[in-house]
Amino acid sequence: MDSCRDAAARGAHLVALPEMVLTGYPTEDLGFRKSFIEASQQCVSELAERLMEEGLGHLVVVVGHLDSAYGRIEERVGLPKNLPTNTASVITGGHIVCRYDKHHLPNYGVFDEFRHFVPGEECQIIQVGGIDIAIAICEDIWQHGPSAAARAAEAGLLLVLNGSPYEAAKDDARLRLCQDRAAEAGCAVGYVNLCGGQDELVFEGDSMVVAADGTCIARARHFEPDLLIVDLDLPAATAPMPDPGERFFGLRAKRDVISAEPVAPYDPDPTPATPRRWDPVGERYQAILSGVRDYVTKNGFRSVLLGLSGGIDSALVATAAVDALGADNVYCVSNPSQWSTDHSKSDAAELARRQGLHFDTVAIAPIVDAFQEPLQLTGLAEENLQARIRAVVWMGLSNQNGHLVLACGNKSELATGYSTIYGDAVGGFAPIKDLPKTLVWEVAKWRNAQAVSNGETPPIPEGIIAKPPSAELRPGQLDTDSLPPYDLLDAILDAYVERDLGSQAVIAEGFDPATVEKVIGLVDRAEYKRRQYPPGPKLSKRNFGRDRRVPITNLWREHL
Amino acid sequence: MDSCRDAAARGAHLVALPEMVLTGYPTEDLGFRKSFIEASQQCVSELAERLMEEGLGHLVVVVGHLDSAYGRIEERVGLPKNLPTNTASVITGGHIVCRYDKHHLPNYGVFDEFRHFVPGEECQIIQVGGIDIAIAICEDIWQHGPSAAARAAEAGLLLVLNGSPYEAAKDDARLRLCQDRAAEAGCAVGYVNLCGGQDELVFEGDSMVVAADGTCIARARHFEPDLLIVDLDLPAATAPMPDPGERFFGLRAKRDVISAEPVAPYDPDPTPATPRRWDPVGERYQAILSGVRDYVTKNGFRSVLLGLSGGIDSALVATAAVDALGADNVYCVSNPSQWSTDHSKSDAAELARRQGLHFDTVAIAPIVDAFQEPLQLTGLAEENLQARIRAVVWMGLSNQNGHLVLACGNKSELATGYSTIYGDAVGGFAPIKDLPKTLVWEVAKWRNAQAVSNGETPPIPEGIIAKPPSAELRPGQLDTDSLPPYDLLDAILDAYVERDLGSQAVIAEGFDPATVEKVIGLVDRAEYKRRQYPPGPKLSKRNFGRDRRVPITNLWREHL
Repeated sequence: MDSCRDAAARGAHLVALPEMVLTGYPTEDLGFRKSFIEASQQCVSELAERLMEEGLGHLVVVVGHLDSAYGRIEERVGLPKNLPTNTASVITGGHIVCRYDKHHLPNYGVFDEFRHFVPGEECQIIQVGGIDIAIAICEDIWQHGPSAAARAAEAGLLLVLNGSPYEAAKDDARLRLCQDRAAEAGCAVGYVNLCGGQDELVFEGDSMVVAADGTCIARARHFEPDLLIVDLDLPAATAPMPDPGERFFGLRAKRDVISAEPVAPYDPDPTPATPRRWDPVGERYQAILSGVRDYVTKNGFRSVLLGLSGGIDSALVATAAVDALGADNVYCVSNPSQWSTDHSKSDAAELARRQGLHFDTVAIAPIVDAFQEPLQLTGLAEENLQARIRAVVWMGLSNQNGHLVLACGNKSELATGYSTIYGDAVGGFAPIKDLPKTLVWEVAKWRNAQAVSNGETPPIPEGIIAKPPSAELRPGQLDTDSLPPYDLLDAILDAYVERDLGSQAVIAEGFDPATVEKVIGLVDRAEYKRRQYPPGPKLSKRNFGRDRRVPITNLWREHL
Repeated sequence: MDSCRDAAARGAHLVALPEMVLTGYPTEDLGFRKSFIEASQQCVSELAERLMEEGLGHLVVVVGHLDSAYGRIEERVGLPKNLPTNTASVITGGHIVCRYDKHHLPNYGVFDEFRHFVPGEECQIIQVGGIDIAIAICEDIWQHGPSAAARAAEAGLLLVLNGSPYEAAKDDARLRLCQDRAAEAGCAVGYVNLCGGQDELVFEGDSMVVAADGTCIARARHFEPDLLIVDLDLPAATAPMPDPGERFFGLRAKRDVISAEPVAPYDPDPTPATPRRWDPVGERYQAILSGVRDYVTKNGFRSVLLGLSGGIDSALVATAAVDALGADNVYCVSNPSQWSTDHSKSDAAELARRQGLHFDTVAIAPIVDAFQEPLQLTGLAEENLQARIRAVVWMGLSNQNGHLVLACGNKSELATGYSTIYGDAVGGFAPIKDLPKTLVWEVAKWRNAQAVSNGETPPIPEGIIAKPPSAELRPGQLDTDSLPPYDLLDAILDAYVERDLGSQAVIAEGFDPATVEKVIGLVDRAEYKRRQYPPGPKLSKRNFGRDRRVPITNLWREHL
């Protein structure tokens, strides 16, 4: 409503809001519940009424939301209950003029839309100020059909509502896609995307308008909510009204004329300023910040707590938490054991000092002794004991003070199971779970470099970035005692996890067979740990969680 | 291979093995990997070769497995990578004669087959001994088309391979379905189902043969692997060969004649004995046993460990573990605190004595003190501390001795979040997570009654069943301090979770609005806990896990 009010104040004729903006995306199985569908429908009606009440009935608003095809098609086996649809409603004059239901439902990667929606079968054109506007939703332009239908309908604008989640470099892919579709549709493309985080998905905003010739005319802020106002000079409608039942590329054509009269000439706004765009490392950091900020605040928390070990992972998570929530809302705990090194303790304290976050120390040696008195654990069991005692301390402080615990594991660790379940793996949210260790260092260096270029002290002490990684669960322990060096490990993981190659294909890329066998074995055996790991923002093409779904019980082993 | 050998020895002409029997079901995203698809294809070829080598080339074997439509259809956006198919291959004479790809792909409940498979578009008939046999896979007979196609093709038998997971009373639904489809197809139906557990799914076997008139001729063992041998007198093929390109209900018809000559007359086997079937309570217990046994053994464990509190939940889990794995593989730990009652301690010890399982006691009071010295936790944080210390003890013993930890939470607890995350919620598998508390009592009583009817001592001491439930984390605590009585709670949960009603609709069933509001609020807020809960066998129509998938971050609240 606020966006509509602001847009109207700045002279907009048409306002486009993103896919499923009224409910958030994805709604998952909530979309089956009748009360939830009805609440979403109610919300659209209320928006229409409030626009009228505030004297904004002249605005044409296209808004994405959950709807239902109930009454329009029959329920049957195999269709989702109550026939939910992923819909764009067109509102003006206090009414819903027409609706467009998403036609192409993505059902791969993080998407499960065949489970959750029934597809629309219409191509909806609205005429506003004498200009024909074709409506599409997200996947509709990643597949063929709707943009060709827009060309066939001789539309002057293809308006696309999106809930397109962040992954590395996807903003570039989206721009190219809009340019391709503008060429295919033979008209300008208005691309409107969600902004914010929900569980594992982060939406980066980055809405844009591309002219018919492929020029990017305007682009909204990246990882920040933004109201993008663009004046467009579009060709008037030329096509005759479609015959009832006419089909464009298999879709029934439907046109609703809202206003045939061209808008009176006026002085256009100057082209909007181009906001800052983030480089490939920086955009991952922004996605982490959005993920943390929205998970914490949308779930009713104000503060977070994490264990600060003096290592790079918790250092980066603490820094991101401070950037996302403010230092006063970040509580760090150091839990030194007899194997903790002096430099780890002093590095953690130095980071806390530089960032001004809350920092406390709870030594675990007496607690280790209390467990060991009856248990007498040795080896790995003894190492894990220390990690789990720390977790009990964090969870106790979290329960006592209402902080959300952040888990600090990175993707390389999660892939190989190099963590203690119910130990360092505890937490409500895991900010860097989709960041491989090599990128953890890159992002940390990037953040420090940002500080330097702003004339600030780097937030992460250089010693934390420089030292060799260690879990410090036994004397002199190094990650490389158990794992290949991280540059090699991450390259193998990229092949096996991100690109889903079999072992033979990974080896064919030039890796040592024994190392490949070891890494793949670790990944396969760690699935049970990943299932109990907290959610965290998807950053890569294939995250553990929504993207990569495999059984735990799995006798299949890749052969060399 | 063993089943084929045994079947041949008993004179079988045709052997049918279940859906996806070579890989297990579901294969999830493993099915995208080229190496995995190729290994599955290789497995079929090897089966064909080995049958020849062992002189069983005359057998006709229909076997379910993962295959690929690669080379038959084009890859494109929206289709799964490498075009996996859910396939039945027909093997004889050392070769694969033909393949049928599942046409109706279920994509609801626990199923995600649109993500994982491309659908087949053919109706495959094989002629064996002059009898036409139509092939279908699982969902194909839950929807329309394939059985009608079998009638159109005048088939003498509809052979259905299945991977149909257990849920309460589904065996009755399956029998009715087979009877309906026999009537629709106008022929006998052979229904072959998987048996065993994989993660959250349990397959109960229960293969059956239904005559054209709907009579159930034979039924295999329930929750046990079984080779069901049935002699059938079926009508000879009458239909002409289909024209190339002919379509039955949208499916291209295809018939392969393996042998046109009727088999020589022989004396049929007597009708197989009807194996024991379980009642509605008993079948849930059998599903729990299958789930535990297969999760433990297929994941390479021999023994389990759990905390035995003296309450009903851990008592039932211990009993199920003993029934599934043998008492010598079950390790129970009692962790009394200052709030543990004498009857809990003695009840736990008595259960251990009756069942002969390993039983150990580790008191937690000194460990509580070691944590409280620096932390000074109070209230809920202090209660949770005790639960988490117990979990650290169990995990330490698990790491030290290689036991899999079982979590003892029931469905009512999981629904309302009435458990301590990283405390009593830890474990690799959660046997009763889909059993509401009221059914926990029912199943416990059923198990005791079984013992009595077998002239054995009831495994669960009566005091455990009779006493009011308590977490014993503070003096005099009862579950009903925090929750409605379980019969009321479970009835509300049935409406809200199983039947997915909104709050208004739940209240309309006659429940107190304030209680409904409280329960729904608890369920909505506990989603983050459920995400980190271990897997456990699906028993109900809608389990938490594969069946009910909702966002954690969710501002939507049901209104009263």
